[in-house]
Amino acid sequence: MTSTTTPESASNLTVRLASRPEGEPTPENFAMAEESLPTPRDNELLLRTIYLSLDPYMRGRMSEAESYAAPVPVGGVMEGGTVCEVMAANTDMFDVGDIVLAHTGWQQYAVASDRVVRKIDPTRAPITTALGVLGMPGFTAYAGLLVIGDPKPSETVVVAAAAGPVGSAVGQIAQIKGARAVGIAGGPAKVEYLKKELGFEVALDHRSPDFVDALAAATPEGIDVYFENVGGAVFDAVLPRMNEFGRIPVCGLVSQYNATSLPDGPDRVPMLMSRILTKSLTVRGFIQREFVRAHYRDFQQDMAGWLTNGKVRYREDVVEGLENAPDAFVGMLRGDNFGKLMIKVGDDPTAGPPAATTAS
Amino acid sequence: MTSTTTPESASNLTVRLASRPEGEPTPENFAMAEESLPTPRDNELLLRTIYLSLDPYMRGRMSEAESYAAPVPVGGVMEGGTVCEVMAANTDMFDVGDIVLAHTGWQQYAVASDRVVRKIDPTRAPITTALGVLGMPGFTAYAGLLVIGDPKPSETVVVAAAAGPVGSAVGQIAQIKGARAVGIAGGPAKVEYLKKELGFEVALDHRSPDFVDALAAATPEGIDVYFENVGGAVFDAVLPRMNEFGRIPVCGLVSQYNATSLPDGPDRVPMLMSRILTKSLTVRGFIQREFVRAHYRDFQQDMAGWLTNGKVRYREDVVEGLENAPDAFVGMLRGDNFGKLMIKVGDDPTAGPPAATTAS
Repeated sequence: MTSTTTPESASNLTVRLASRPEGEPTPENFAMAEESLPTPRDNELLLRTIYLSLDPYMRGRMSEAESYAAPVPVGGVMEGGTVCEVMAANTDMFDVGDIVLAHTGWQQYAVASDRVVRKIDPTRAPITTALGVLGMPGFTAYAGLLVIGDPKPSETVVVAAAAGPVGSAVGQIAQIKGARAVGIAGGPAKVEYLKKELGFEVALDHRSPDFVDALAAATPEGIDVYFENVGGAVFDAVLPRMNEFGRIPVCGLVSQYNATSLPDGPDRVPMLMSRILTKSLTVRGFIQREFVRAHYRDFQQDMAGWLTNGKVRYREDVVEGLENAPDAFVGMLRGDNFGKLMIKVGDDPTAGPPAATTAS
Repeated sequence: MTSTTTPESASNLTVRLASRPEGEPTPENFAMAEESLPTPRDNELLLRTIYLSLDPYMRGRMSEAESYAAPVPVGGVMEGGTVCEVMAANTDMFDVGDIVLAHTGWQQYAVASDRVVRKIDPTRAPITTALGVLGMPGFTAYAGLLVIGDPKPSETVVVAAAAGPVGSAVGQIAQIKGARAVGIAGGPAKVEYLKKELGFEVALDHRSPDFVDALAAATPEGIDVYFENVGGAVFDAVLPRMNEFGRIPVCGLVSQYNATSLPDGPDRVPMLMSRILTKSLTVRGFIQREFVRAHYRDFQQDMAGWLTNGKVRYREDVVEGLENAPDAFVGMLRGDNFGKLMIKVGDDPTAGPPAATTAS
């Protein structure tokens, strides 16, 4: 056991789920409170949050609808991945001052078992990347694209939300594998970024009135892989262009997370099933964790190499202060963020270059 | 070249596509005519049709909508697999009197290249099985279930149209592999057949008013593989019961082939995509031909063995006379047939036991 470095007087700002949202979350769905610090027991750590990751999947956790993970209970701390500093360690596995990847949620301090956190080496890459390109979003892109999408050289890969942390990695990995990457994003700034900074062969604005025609022009050979992150109108534009034996890894459906009812008819399920049949399509939902055992080690090695040689670039959107998490989260569901969204909850002892800029 | 045994006076009854159906095909969509016999050139055979296979996919060929194969042109002979006798052979590869599997369609006589027909050994199994359990439908079941469905021991496999040639093979192969087979069929006679003759653990009548509850009761552990042949209400009942990582090979959608418009709303595409996402489902359309190269040889060997040891049983529904093909075909799309539907177009020189009965 090492002694704590936390001031006795510190309190713990937490953000709890106050009520389940109907549609778009509002400030009333979140409750902030100053609480007392938890105390670690044997084999536990006291952690101070430095960065909190905000991700679209969290919208699902706010609802009671059946999903791949249990919902956050009303009154529970909002869930989320974090990068933390170890403040006290009742274990030999970590030292005070270690930087770790944890899943301690929307709060300044938390206690975690020494078995569920992973040490981060701050000399290897900025510690923020453990929540982004070198973390869950990067691995989601890697596994979903390579295992399910399986792009072949010269095939056409279309990815939605392409300026986001998952989509931007999908497009760049696709190009590394020799495929053509067509990115779809919302607004001219993101489109410009995809083309200029990330080297997407084509980038399209789904808000543009001629989006459907532009997609057709950008995919003259059809679409072999569509990495689905958004659903809705983008999916509708993509589906008729899918080639025989096309693959659709379904990673997310952010455009419909806030929906409170189904769209008006007709019911197009028979049309979708008919497309799947006549084009021999594969539509495959996934969560990255199913691929961790088989592919995480390769991912870490490949992605570290691509970052080093500049083949993968990334962008982070860092918002200061846990109290701003609810607004930032709601904005992200609308596409307001630009790059991997995270909250800087506390001081970053690894310093490093200023955030909120493009890194290579 | 061997000399022909066809009488000079023979004429060729053909069934051509007269017009494209709107909804359910009617007699007016077909045109029958007595035509003169075609003449084989070098490396061609003159074939006399003994059996014509009728299959749901043919409905798709009657329409102009984009599909996995080109439509039959208006005025063209209706397409279909056949078992034929060689009447003349301008090739060394076949002899007059040989029985062959061909794809000569709805007509009494046809000419075919010696490269596109395959010899059938009538001593191995009844020659009708080349159109059913040992042919395309059996292979469709085998490849779709084993390659895409990949059932594990004790998993639950649900199959629709389970009394049909594909579905009955799916259920029996699933049980051979140690899975639980739940068959869905229309009407008590077919349900009884699945349980008594084919040994399905459970068989359900989708026309029964308590079908949804019965399906729930029959799948207490959920559904791991749903072999999709029909779509519509059966799919709607199955989808909520799919387990995480469930697989849905999409082989056919016969319930919607005659539809002229989409059902009323709401549009449930977002619901379907959400299920695929949150349950990590695989929905995979397929046509058997993509698996021929890798799996056909194994299929032939396995299926022949299962027929010999009685682990797979099958049923054929043989209708006499090519002139009855249109009615039989339309009835099949409604589920009127009971077993693999085929037309006996001409004399069967291999004689054999009476058709239209259950064989083992």
